[in-house]
Amino acid sequence: MAEKIRVTVWNEFRHEKSEESIRTIYPDGLHAVIANALSKDAELEVRLAALDDPDQGLPLDVLNNTDVLIWWGHMAHHEVNDALVEAIRARVYYGKMGLVVLHSGHHSKVFRSVVGSTGNLSWGRNQKEIVWNINPTHPIAAGIPDHFCLESEELYAEPFYVGEPDETVFLSWFEDGFVMRSGLVFKRSAGKIFYFQPGHEECRSFYNEWVQKVIHNAVYYVKPAVSAFEIPEGAPHWGFRAADEFDA
Amino acid sequence: MAEKIRVTVWNEFRHEKSEESIRTIYPDGLHAVIANALSKDAELEVRLAALDDPDQGLPLDVLNNTDVLIWWGHMAHHEVNDALVEAIRARVYYGKMGLVVLHSGHHSKVFRSVVGSTGNLSWGRNQKEIVWNINPTHPIAAGIPDHFCLESEELYAEPFYVGEPDETVFLSWFEDGFVMRSGLVFKRSAGKIFYFQPGHEECRSFYNEWVQKVIHNAVYYVKPAVSAFEIPEGAPHWGFRAADEFDA
Amino acid sequence: MAEKIRVTVWNEFRHEKSEESIRTIYPDGLHAVIANALSKDAELEVRLAALDDPDQGLPLDVLNNTDVLIWWGHMAHHEVNDALVEAIRARVYYGKMGLVVLHSGHHSKVFRSVVGSTGNLSWGRNQKEIVWNINPTHPIAAGIPDHFCLESEELYAEPFYVGEPDETVFLSWFEDGFVMRSGLVFKRSAGKIFYFQPGHEECRSFYNEWVQKVIHNAVYYVKPAVSAFEIPEGAPHWGFRAADEFDA
Amino acid sequence: MAEKIRVTVWNEFRHEKSEESIRTIYPDGLHAVIANALSKDAELEVRLAALDDPDQGLPLDVLNNTDVLIWWGHMAHHEVNDALVEAIRARVYYGKMGLVVLHSGHHSKVFRSVVGSTGNLSWGRNQKEIVWNINPTHPIAAGIPDHFCLESEELYAEPFYVGEPDETVFLSWFEDGFVMRSGLVFKRSAGKIFYFQPGHEECRSFYNEWVQKVIHNAVYYVKPAVSAFEIPEGAPHWGFRAADEFDA
Repeated sequence: MAEKIRVTVWNEFRHEKSEESIRTIYPDGLHAVIANALSKDAELEVRLAALDDPDQGLPLDVLNNTDVLIWWGHMAHHEVNDALVEAIRARVYYGKMGLVVLHSGHHSKVFRSVVGSTGNLSWGRNQKEIVWNINPTHPIAAGIPDHFCLESEELYAEPFYVGEPDETVFLSWFEDGFVMRSGLVFKRSAGKIFYFQPGHEECRSFYNEWVQKVIHNAVYYVKPAVSAFEIPEGAPHWGFRAADEFDA
Repeated sequence: MAEKIRVTVWNEFRHEKSEESIRTIYPDGLHAVIANALSKDAELEVRLAALDDPDQGLPLDVLNNTDVLIWWGHMAHHEVNDALVEAIRARVYYGKMGLVVLHSGHHSKVFRSVVGSTGNLSWGRNQKEIVWNINPTHPIAAGIPDHFCLESEELYAEPFYVGEPDETVFLSWFEDGFVMRSGLVFKRSAGKIFYFQPGHEECRSFYNEWVQKVIHNAVYYVKPAVSAFEIPEGAPHWGFRAADEFDA
Repeated sequence: MAEKIRVTVWNEFRHEKSEESIRTIYPDGLHAVIANALSKDAELEVRLAALDDPDQGLPLDVLNNTDVLIWWGHMAHHEVNDALVEAIRARVYYGKMGLVVLHSGHHSKVFRSVVGSTGNLSWGRNQKEIVWNINPTHPIAAGIPDHFCLESEELYAEPFYVGEPDETVFLSWFEDGFVMRSGLVFKRSAGKIFYFQPGHEECRSFYNEWVQKVIHNAVYYVKPAVSAFEIPEGAPHWGFRAADEFDA
Repeated sequence: MAEKIRVTVWNEFRHEKSEESIRTIYPDGLHAVIANALSKDAELEVRLAALDDPDQGLPLDVLNNTDVLIWWGHMAHHEVNDALVEAIRARVYYGKMGLVVLHSGHHSKVFRSVVGSTGNLSWGRNQKEIVWNINPTHPIAAGIPDHFCLESEELYAEPFYVGEPDETVFLSWFEDGFVMRSGLVFKRSAGKIFYFQPGHEECRSFYNEWVQKVIHNAVYYVKPAVSAFEIPEGAPHWGFRAADEFDA
């Protein structure tokens, strides 16, 4: 891993181009707002990527120089190349890249494939949401108050069909009577994935200071760990007897 | 384990005696309502126990003939004998007794000691609660709809300081803007514990069909498992070499 | 779910046909030995399936009438149709089918895709293995002694890159100095998966009474649960306010 | 938390005084060897404490200035004051102190009480042990090779009755045919506990570079996290409506 943490913020970046009301909120794409917030940290080297960029924004030289990939997609999940999904999956599993999936990314090929899940949940109208910090000593909750309010977010509601996550950091309350595990950590093979529910394109959540801080914390949490040995590819054959290694 | 599942419903049973308004709701104690509901199942043998009974309701011959202990306490947590807590703890850990802790039992010596937790959470006024079934294929959720409403329950709210539970079955929404993991499974040593949040003495939740069904399911889920060998006490010394046991 | 549990034992069934030494051990295929053992239980309806059968052994009418799928594959993982893998994945995730993956199935498309993992581990020569029951009150360990010996099994060794499994039931000791988490439960979306390590085609483990009993227990453990509501496909839109449902 | 991480290494420190053979190995106590190794890290401020010190080595001013407590005990578990155990338990649960429990500490009042467990396991003669790193990207495994050998350690063997730990970092192979989950993380309330199995007083494991490195890593992993809010004591009453906090 390079000295700086190299973050690539990937956005489908379609709503912002096709819908005036969305463009008004996120004129340069919602990924630009996320990236701007992260860029205040000089330890991070932040790059933008979008579906309509060459190689869907993630050519090999970008992927190979990304420590943490942030993913936002929605209407064009099906357009993402299967080969790209596999490339991301491998990097996460081999501990070379951490993954942060935002909002409607729960239904992306990337999330479903890496986590191993349908990613299904229920949804509804934009409404008031309160995000509760239920794990205040978790690194992703560092600096986050016991709760914060989002004036308007899209309803995402349980059951969220993801099995039992490895760590639950946030739970959300929604005005209309629904709840959602809104901040979840998954560990898969040698990698970590964080899912965070806020971030509908019609809402301003990515401008919220706490949403920004959660994403910032998550970058540090899922970034590749330094391992004493390379995670091997495939299933190595061991021709030796470990039991013979003793000094005696 | 005997053929029937032997359930003991333990209640502090003080509010019902000292407060007219509570007695009106639960004239024979809230444990009687729980026990009546369970008794409809002929596979269960249900017994009542209360703090002011001899031996605090749980003399050895009762404990030794209890497969599942249901626990409700509140104002008199501190009166429960430490020796009784230890006796319960041992039976749960050795896989001889399952434990279901209800509502304010989160602060009982039994819960704190068996689970290993402060049991702390926050609370507030009675209000509307919606219990969401987030794990519909879990045995404790069998037959429970995707959500059910409690007209009035005491607010119990996150953070609930219990670390990461082994299984999360229910999440609750509260009218005033709070959320709570309201149905949680903990596995400790060779035993299982289920915590369920509804059940304030001022409210009628124990008459609710779904609350009754959850408790009923939980009895079956936490009941002792049949093991091929006795869970040993202490730390047995092994003087043999397992590696020498092969036939060759 | 039908009254009986409908189990389909799928085997790649190539080694047994192409290698005399394997055929000697498992003349009708290793799946036949597994199925024979399971068939002693009259509650189970057991069927055989193999890669070279029409539709790779799993046409839709078989898949749709399978409650538990047992999977053994090795040299032909890559031949399994992606569409079949997706069909299995969906049935597990929607709680319609449980999955038991045996031995070299750790590298099958099915395991990697359903669990979300590389499935990587290390391997080596056949040798003595001792399977330790570390979770004696788990349903999959019912009736299993604290340990049992396999005279000769293929070495499978840690690290097994599967993240943190939901439940660990067995750990194995290998003569040459290696260890392996050999019995693991994964929960994904609304389904359960059990991985069990013994079962090399050159060895006789599927004739072992404890191996047979573990697989038998696993069938009961991963079989679909009865849910009060159908697990919805996709992400349903909720147009109502749960908060409006109270009686008052 | 002060700038340096303040580590207190607590040792029962009896074997080293009463048995010549032990004193030969650890003349200043095994805690001195652990502390010497940790002291090479200038970020750590390391202190020694022993059972026979005033206040059992942990007067309030020490406890209140300890970020990470390392615990080794064996023959005198029962002499440790219950009030001290409670004081440790509270600090761990409130996220004020991390805990590392070594070897025979599995049976200490501290381990049993904080984790909520019998701590039972089986044991036997000193023998060869191979510690396998099964979680190489876990912070506690940083810099640790895929396995390392201990020429002679006391056999500690499964079943280790601790339920399902939150994270499994190391598994051990023992010469005589036994296995053990030898490096385990538990999360309880707002605190973290790491248990590590090597460290018998008759053996030289605390001089082993990898054992030292694991303990060093563990100090960083379990140390108190910075939370945005104080973990509240007891069960705070909330008299406000979070749902009323929105700007609108």
